[in-house]
Amino acid sequence: MKNYLFAPGPTPIPTETLLAMASPIDYHRASESVELIGNVTAKLKYVFQTNNDVMILTSSGTGAMEAIITNLLSSDDRVTVIRSGKFGERWGEICAAYGIQLDPINIEWGRSVDPQQVEDQLNRYPETKAVLATLCETSTGALHDIKTLGDIIQDSQTLLVVDAVSALCADDLQMDNWSVDAVVSCSHKGLMTPPGLGLVSLSDQAWKATKSSDLPKFYFDLRQARDAGNRGSTPYTPAITFIKALDQALDHIHQEKIENVLERHAYLAQATRGAVKAMGLKLFAQDPANTLTSICLPNRVDGQALVEMIRNRHGVTYAGGQAKLKGKIIRIAHLGWVCEHDMIVAISTLERGLSEVGYNLTLGSGLAAAQEVFRNSQP
Amino acid sequence: MKNYLFAPGPTPIPTETLLAMASPIDYHRASESVELIGNVTAKLKYVFQTNNDVMILTSSGTGAMEAIITNLLSSDDRVTVIRSGKFGERWGEICAAYGIQLDPINIEWGRSVDPQQVEDQLNRYPETKAVLATLCETSTGALHDIKTLGDIIQDSQTLLVVDAVSALCADDLQMDNWSVDAVVSCSHKGLMTPPGLGLVSLSDQAWKATKSSDLPKFYFDLRQARDAGNRGSTPYTPAITFIKALDQALDHIHQEKIENVLERHAYLAQATRGAVKAMGLKLFAQDPANTLTSICLPNRVDGQALVEMIRNRHGVTYAGGQAKLKGKIIRIAHLGWVCEHDMIVAISTLERGLSEVGYNLTLGSGLAAAQEVFRNSQP
Repeated sequence: MKNYLFAPGPTPIPTETLLAMASPIDYHRASESVELIGNVTAKLKYVFQTNNDVMILTSSGTGAMEAIITNLLSSDDRVTVIRSGKFGERWGEICAAYGIQLDPINIEWGRSVDPQQVEDQLNRYPETKAVLATLCETSTGALHDIKTLGDIIQDSQTLLVVDAVSALCADDLQMDNWSVDAVVSCSHKGLMTPPGLGLVSLSDQAWKATKSSDLPKFYFDLRQARDAGNRGSTPYTPAITFIKALDQALDHIHQEKIENVLERHAYLAQATRGAVKAMGLKLFAQDPANTLTSICLPNRVDGQALVEMIRNRHGVTYAGGQAKLKGKIIRIAHLGWVCEHDMIVAISTLERGLSEVGYNLTLGSGLAAAQEVFRNSQP
Repeated sequence: MKNYLFAPGPTPIPTETLLAMASPIDYHRASESVELIGNVTAKLKYVFQTNNDVMILTSSGTGAMEAIITNLLSSDDRVTVIRSGKFGERWGEICAAYGIQLDPINIEWGRSVDPQQVEDQLNRYPETKAVLATLCETSTGALHDIKTLGDIIQDSQTLLVVDAVSALCADDLQMDNWSVDAVVSCSHKGLMTPPGLGLVSLSDQAWKATKSSDLPKFYFDLRQARDAGNRGSTPYTPAITFIKALDQALDHIHQEKIENVLERHAYLAQATRGAVKAMGLKLFAQDPANTLTSICLPNRVDGQALVEMIRNRHGVTYAGGQAKLKGKIIRIAHLGWVCEHDMIVAISTLERGLSEVGYNLTLGSGLAAAQEVFRNSQP
């Protein structure tokens, strides 16, 4: 059975990238590795749309999120956390682990923050050290308006910190143009490389904050990571295999150009959303991201069982709902090394899977809607 | 040019293990991955020689060392740190980052701790929460007598914590039999897998300490890691590619049997030491480990330049000296997926490299000594 992966990470990996990992291991301090690490750092700046350094950590995205907290904040800081799903909540959990005072903005899951709420909050607490936001809330599929948040925070002393773990390369994030102070991402979503690398970039203002930060850190010390990175090195032995793979994957993105990569994700998402609606289903996110599409299931359909059945019978992996959304939604990522042919497979399989559990739909209705989008959008 | 890697990590990777990484990426929450994580955890217990759980972290070995500190200790604890090289010092640096009171036992680099010193220290400070030790101090090649430290600490409330990052599978470490409370290791040394996985195992007494620990942690929370691990999962997205590779590599070890793996490392080390002496050179470590051999260079030979020249001209990578040993020693690992043929290459190349920089030796003298060892030791 052919297998297809539409989870919001890990995402499918280009064959050349897989093969790069099967070559003999490199000594991470050899001159070739120094050059490799330097090259990958430079190529990452392009996808982060920044002139700031990008640090490569050996960890998952969550480790990189923790690095942001422990390097930028101090024990007496207060922060605003936008909580609109599992990953916004994670920002809060990390802060809580370090005793940081937390002012949450709680948003109904599936909704995105109204930037006015953030402005009001900052007027109330002008001493706020940072606003912790999420570009795409992966648990709900909602996109947040980071550009407007950047406009609001731009002239203040408050730092804008963005979790772009899932959305980098899928939803636009212009770190420098939008005045974002810290971006965190990882290797295994839009960057088409296995999980294992956390990626972080900081603005000048964020680097200033690292100087006064009094929270304890060692492995995730970003100043050490930056200084080593500038020498083509890392403070500790890195996952050099994945850095080599990432180099390969970044070449794909450079060849396609970031604006085209974003455009591709946009029309794949549009086609998926169109298909879902044509099948009589509702989108879960009010303002959906181009990273993944979250779909509300009819009450009588058990989402967990549906995902499991489709995986076993058809070899197609979607993600189910997380936490309180377990069983209630399914999530289909169109993320990374994915094209319209893949989404045709994703949509056709969803049609069949739903009909197999007794949902009444016209087979082909979703596909037809997707075809219309592809006819109009493909370059 | 054929390349040979004799650094103390990363170490050469078996071809089957490399190929495992080139297969399509697995969804880390699929039932196959749950089974995989469960299997790898079980196989790791065998090499840790323990019945305790082994936790798999996505990080380098240093991240796993930090996990031990933040999970076992509290802010008012005092610990004894055996500092006999760069990695013993690292224990101290991590403690310092978290404000832990440190009683160092400073050992001349190249020497190993006299267990009596530890006993005296514990008599002086019976409230000591933990002794932080190193099985093989990779920067010097010295082996420490963990078994005797275990005997000393066994009936006390003090925890014995061992950095086996480089030495696991090369120098014997019987976690349960020797009353070791915490062992930290990683994927890219004796375990023949790329760098990217930190491995930790804790005794019951160490788990008790985690309950009262008040140091902040999130990504490296070991109780979360254990609970998830028992479900074949991880708290955050793991480097599933490396777990798959590690599964492969662990099968090699299970087939060879751990006692034979240790025996192989012992005779490869013995042959290397014999060769070095026959070439008229001195070993740097007084009590050398079977993980790697550190070799003192004649004063007029620049170790950095020698390592670089041999790498460029002969395609053979040794490690140079670190920190204050830079240029003064070279380090040859016989670690992981390595057999006598590899060490013949390592020794012959060392002979040639030294003669090329003007060191006066009889070509073949080192090789002859190694051959004698192999004749007597090979199974």
